[in-house]
Amino acid sequence: MIDSVLIDELKSLVEPGKVLLDADSLNAYGKDWTKQFAPAPSAIVFPKTIGEVQAIVRWANERRVALVPSGGRTGLSAAAVAANGEVVVAFDYMSQILAFNEFDRTAVCQPGVVTAQLQQFAEEKGLYYPVDFASAGSSQIGGNIGTNAGGIKVIRYGMTRNWVAGLKVVTGTGELLELNKDLIKNATGYDLRQLFIGAEGTLGFVVEATMRLDRAPQNLTAMVLGAAELDAIMPVLHAFQSRIDLTAFEFFSDKALAKVMARGDVPAPFESECPYYALLEFEASTEEVANAALETFEHCVEQGWVLDGVMSQSEQQLQNLWKLREYISETISHFTPYKNDISVTVSQVPPFLKEIDALVAEHYPDFEIVWFGHIGDGNLHLNILKPAEMDTAEFFGKCATVNKWVFEIVARYNGSISAEHGVGMTKRDYLGYSRSDAEIAYMKAIKAVFDPNGIMNPGKIFV
Amino acid sequence: MIDSVLIDELKSLVEPGKVLLDADSLNAYGKDWTKQFAPAPSAIVFPKTIGEVQAIVRWANERRVALVPSGGRTGLSAAAVAANGEVVVAFDYMSQILAFNEFDRTAVCQPGVVTAQLQQFAEEKGLYYPVDFASAGSSQIGGNIGTNAGGIKVIRYGMTRNWVAGLKVVTGTGELLELNKDLIKNATGYDLRQLFIGAEGTLGFVVEATMRLDRAPQNLTAMVLGAAELDAIMPVLHAFQSRIDLTAFEFFSDKALAKVMARGDVPAPFESECPYYALLEFEASTEEVANAALETFEHCVEQGWVLDGVMSQSEQQLQNLWKLREYISETISHFTPYKNDISVTVSQVPPFLKEIDALVAEHYPDFEIVWFGHIGDGNLHLNILKPAEMDTAEFFGKCATVNKWVFEIVARYNGSISAEHGVGMTKRDYLGYSRSDAEIAYMKAIKAVFDPNGIMNPGKIFV
Repeated sequence: MIDSVLIDELKSLVEPGKVLLDADSLNAYGKDWTKQFAPAPSAIVFPKTIGEVQAIVRWANERRVALVPSGGRTGLSAAAVAANGEVVVAFDYMSQILAFNEFDRTAVCQPGVVTAQLQQFAEEKGLYYPVDFASAGSSQIGGNIGTNAGGIKVIRYGMTRNWVAGLKVVTGTGELLELNKDLIKNATGYDLRQLFIGAEGTLGFVVEATMRLDRAPQNLTAMVLGAAELDAIMPVLHAFQSRIDLTAFEFFSDKALAKVMARGDVPAPFESECPYYALLEFEASTEEVANAALETFEHCVEQGWVLDGVMSQSEQQLQNLWKLREYISETISHFTPYKNDISVTVSQVPPFLKEIDALVAEHYPDFEIVWFGHIGDGNLHLNILKPAEMDTAEFFGKCATVNKWVFEIVARYNGSISAEHGVGMTKRDYLGYSRSDAEIAYMKAIKAVFDPNGIMNPGKIFV
Repeated sequence: MIDSVLIDELKSLVEPGKVLLDADSLNAYGKDWTKQFAPAPSAIVFPKTIGEVQAIVRWANERRVALVPSGGRTGLSAAAVAANGEVVVAFDYMSQILAFNEFDRTAVCQPGVVTAQLQQFAEEKGLYYPVDFASAGSSQIGGNIGTNAGGIKVIRYGMTRNWVAGLKVVTGTGELLELNKDLIKNATGYDLRQLFIGAEGTLGFVVEATMRLDRAPQNLTAMVLGAAELDAIMPVLHAFQSRIDLTAFEFFSDKALAKVMARGDVPAPFESECPYYALLEFEASTEEVANAALETFEHCVEQGWVLDGVMSQSEQQLQNLWKLREYISETISHFTPYKNDISVTVSQVPPFLKEIDALVAEHYPDFEIVWFGHIGDGNLHLNILKPAEMDTAEFFGKCATVNKWVFEIVARYNGSISAEHGVGMTKRDYLGYSRSDAEIAYMKAIKAVFDPNGIMNPGKIFV
C-alpha cells in the first residue's frame, strides 16, 4: 500500500473528491468479474481529462507506483483486478461521445463510454456498432480495446480491433500518442495502434478512441438448426457461407439447451431433440436471400446433416431464438461451473472438442460438460458443472487438472488458451501453451519500451 | 560492398548457383519501380526454405551485413532498393501455395507467391482474394504484407492486414516466430503479427503467410457518375453507402479522363462532360440491389449532385468502365509526372484537394494537375504533369517545393504522407509530417528489439 504522502500528492493531481479511499470503493473498483484474487488497491482515482491521466501516470512513473486501469470491470481474466496495493485509474468521468462524423461514419469516444451507449448512439444516427456480447450494458470502450473484445458478431464484423479508427494513449512515461488519426489508409511505418489493442493496459492507457460505425443491418433473421452429430456442423457452416453473408454462427449442445429450457421462460425452437444445435443469423435484406437460406437448409436436411430447423419470421421470434444461446451463460452460473474460453481454427473444432470430451469423460465421468460458443470463429466456451454432491474445493481442484489437459490439447491443435477473454492474471501462467518463449521475450521487451518502469498494470499477461 | 570471404560464406548457406553477382542481376534485383536511387547491392541470394532464410539472417547478424528483402519489386517508395552494398534476399524460389483449407477459407503462401497467383487460386476454389491493385500481376504476398498493400477494394475489404490469418517471420537475430497460428480469436497478449504488417521488412522477413479468402462476389456491377462539383462527391458516396455495400468508390478528374480518352481505345462513359467523376461498384446480387442503385442514382440527379451516369449491363461493360480508372496511371506516365500518394479522412477530401489545387495554381499556373484515387478511403493520388516545354530537372526542382507544401497541408489536415505506398527511402525525410517525434522514437526502439544490430532493410522508414 502507498503512504499518505503519496495519497496527498495523488489528490493534488485531480479535482477535489476524485480520489476514493473507503473500503467499499476499494473493494468495488479493485476487481472485475473474476473471483480468484482479493481486491486490495491503495486508492481509486477518477481523472476527468487526458491531461489529468498524463499527470497521474507521470507521477506514478516518478514514484514507481503501480496503476491498474478500470472500465466496466466485466473482465473474466482478472486483468482489471488490483490485488497488490495498486492505484486504480477509473474512467467513469470520461464517458462522453465527443464527436460524430456522418461521412466518415466515426464517433470519437472517451474511454469510459459504455459499449451499449455507443451501440445506442449509432442506432440514433441510423448506423450500427457491431461489437456485441453479454456484458455490453456495463463494459466500457477503453476495456473493449484493452481486451480486443469479440462476441457474437465476429464472423461478419471482426473483433473490436477492426472498428478502432484512431487511438489516443498515454504510455508508461505519461507521453500522449495520437495513433493513426482516424485514417483508413496510412502506410507510415509501424501501426502502433495495433499494439495497444489487446494489450490489457500493460503498455499504456486508452484515453480516447475514434470508433467506426457501419451501415445498420436490414431485417436480421435467425435460424436454429438441430444437427445429428458434431461433424455435421462444419459442412452446414460451409454450405451457408457459400451462399450467404452470415452475421453470426453460434453453437450449443443439447445439455446447454436443456438448462435454458428448464427455466421455463423461453419457447423450444422445435420439437425434435438433437445432440447439437447451431444458431445462424443473416440479413434477409431481400426475399431472394431468405429463399437462398431456406434452400440451403433443405440441402442440409437432404444430406442428413440437419434433423430439424426453424427460421424467425418476426423480430420477436428472432429475439426468442437468440435467448436460447444468450441465456446459457447466466443459466449455468448457478451450477458453479468451471469455465474456459479457448479457440482453434474453425475446421479443427469437431476433433478438438471430441478430444476434450473424451478425456474428461474418462477421468471424471460424473462431470457434466456444457459446450457453447462462437463456432463460426473457432471459439468455444467450455463449461464443466459441479456435481451437486461434490465439495466446491474438491471440484475446482479436479478442474485445475482438467485445465492443464485442456491447454495441452489446445497447444497440440495450435489453438489459443484465451480466445476473447484475455490473459490477465488467470491465464498468465499458461501463456506458454499459446505463445513461444521467443514471443514472450519480445512482448516483455516491447513492454519495456513503452513502460520502462513497469508501472502500467504490472503482473498482467506476464510477470 | 562486402568482400569475397563473406560472399563465399553466403554461398555456403544456400544451394549451388543461388547467389548471383553479375551486373545484370545486381541491377535488376537491386531496385523497385522508383528511380531516384541507383541500385548497388553486393549480391543477390535466393533461399528456398525457411531454414535457409534463418541461416542467411543469422550470418548477416553475426557479420553485420545489411539485408534487403526483394519481392515483385513493384514498390513506389524505394523500400526494396539496395543502394548501399546490401545483400538482397529474393524470394523467387519460395513461391508456392502450400496448403488450402475450404472450411477455414485459408491458403498458406510462401512469400514469393504473386498476388495474381493467389487471386487465381482463390477463383479456382470458388473463392476470392480481394486485395487488388495495378501491379497485382507482379507483386508478391511478402511485399504486400510488408507494405500492407491496399488498392481498389479497400472500402469493402480493407487492406492486406485484414487478410493475414497467420504469419511466420524471421527476426533480425534469425529467430523464427509463428504469429497467431491462423486463429480468428486469440487474446493472448500483444498481436505481434500486426507489427510486421506494414513494417517494410525492417523488423524481420515474412517467410510464410496464411491468407484468408472470401466468398466470391456475385454479379459485380459498376456505375460511372459525372459530378458538377467536387463537393457533390461526398453526399453521393453517403447516399450510396446508406443503401448498398459498395465494393469500390473511385474518383478521377476531367483531366484524367481526357488523357485516357485520347488513347482512343476506351469508349467514353457518356456524352456529358463533367469536372469530376466517380466510379462505384457493388454486387448486384439481386434485382432489388440493382434497383436500389438506380433509385439512388436518380436521387443524386434530382439533388443536382450528379449530371450524368451509366451502369454496366455486362461483364464487358464493367471492364470498360474500370479501364477509365485503371488506365490513368499508365497513360499519364508518358508525361513525366510528379506523383504523390496521400490520404485524409474521407470527409476532408474536398477542402483538402481544393487547397492543394489552389496552391499549385497560384505558384505554378502552367502545371497540369491530374487527380485520381480511392476517394471512398480518403486516398488521393496527386499527379502533376511536366509542361512539355519545361526542362525535367527544373520541373522536379519545382516539384520538390510543391512536395513540402503538400506535406504541410497533409499535416494540417491530420492526414498521411503515404496512404498505401509506404515510406521506404522516398518519404523517410518527411515522416515527421505524419508521425510525432515520440512515435518515431518508439518505432526505433521497437526496431531495436527485433533487429538489435540494424541489419534488416536499414535506412528504410527512418535512418
